[in-house]
Amino acid sequence: MVNIRHRVVVGAPMEFVYEAVSTPAGLSGWWTRDGVRGDASEGSRLEFFFGMPDPAAVMEVTGRNPDGRVSWECVDGADEWVGTKLSFDLKQTAGETVVNFTHGGWRESSEFMAHCSARWAYFLLSLKSLVENGRGTPFPEDLKF
Amino acid sequence: MVNIRHRVVVGAPMEFVYEAVSTPAGLSGWWTRDGVRGDASEGSRLEFFFGMPDPAAVMEVTGRNPDGRVSWECVDGADEWVGTKLSFDLKQTAGETVVNFTHGGWRESSEFMAHCSARWAYFLLSLKSLVENGRGTPFPEDLKF
Repeated sequence: MVNIRHRVVVGAPMEFVYEAVSTPAGLSGWWTRDGVRGDASEGSRLEFFFGMPDPAAVMEVTGRNPDGRVSWECVDGADEWVGTKLSFDLKQTAGETVVNFTHGGWRESSEFMAHCSARWAYFLLSLKSLVENGRGTPFPEDLKF
Repeated sequence: MVNIRHRVVVGAPMEFVYEAVSTPAGLSGWWTRDGVRGDASEGSRLEFFFGMPDPAAVMEVTGRNPDGRVSWECVDGADEWVGTKLSFDLKQTAGETVVNFTHGGWRESSEFMAHCSARWAYFLLSLKSLVENGRGTPFPEDLKF
């Protein structure tokens, strides 16, 4: 099993970062403005849309704790994503929040995984910009690469 | 051993991307403008400066092939970096260049590695911007996170 891991520091209190990673409105502000549908409560499912009629990813919310952790399991989407586990671990320091992101449980280290790794870093900086400046760069306003 | 891998597409022919990853002038345009010193030929060493009197990283150039591959081994710098291996694998498609970057051979998956993973993605997008638009965001002009 191989994992993508990124650490990004956001210059804002944890409650704002938690809001951005745990609610459909927050997630649509930095990952995909095209649509985040469903229920963000633990045990429910969230669907993420990227310009197609079907969601590109469906996540089951496996954890949602305002103390600083949101976790998902991908239950539908790209073949390489199904069964992988994602988490946002938040730690507040003086006026800042450290975000430790993991997209783990990939079956192999593929070129698609390398693409997703760079894309996740980009979107985590979009999350940082959303929380700090009120404006992210979610799909479809994202840089294409 | 764990690896950081990122894939980024640059909208330019391979020779321009190769120049940017294989010469001190190119590297200073997207990674650190503070200083890239040394000799970029195979078997030589490159020193990368980030605002301190000593280089933050010293790389031995282990490969340098205009057909599309540049590789380094870190021989001095952060303890977790020493002994790790880095490579830029370039593939030209129609008018574009696919960059597959690896920073491999980490002893463990640490929070510092997660930090470096996000930082590398940021700097690879700086490389993309340098080659496509003539302007990267190297240290010290980089976003701090």
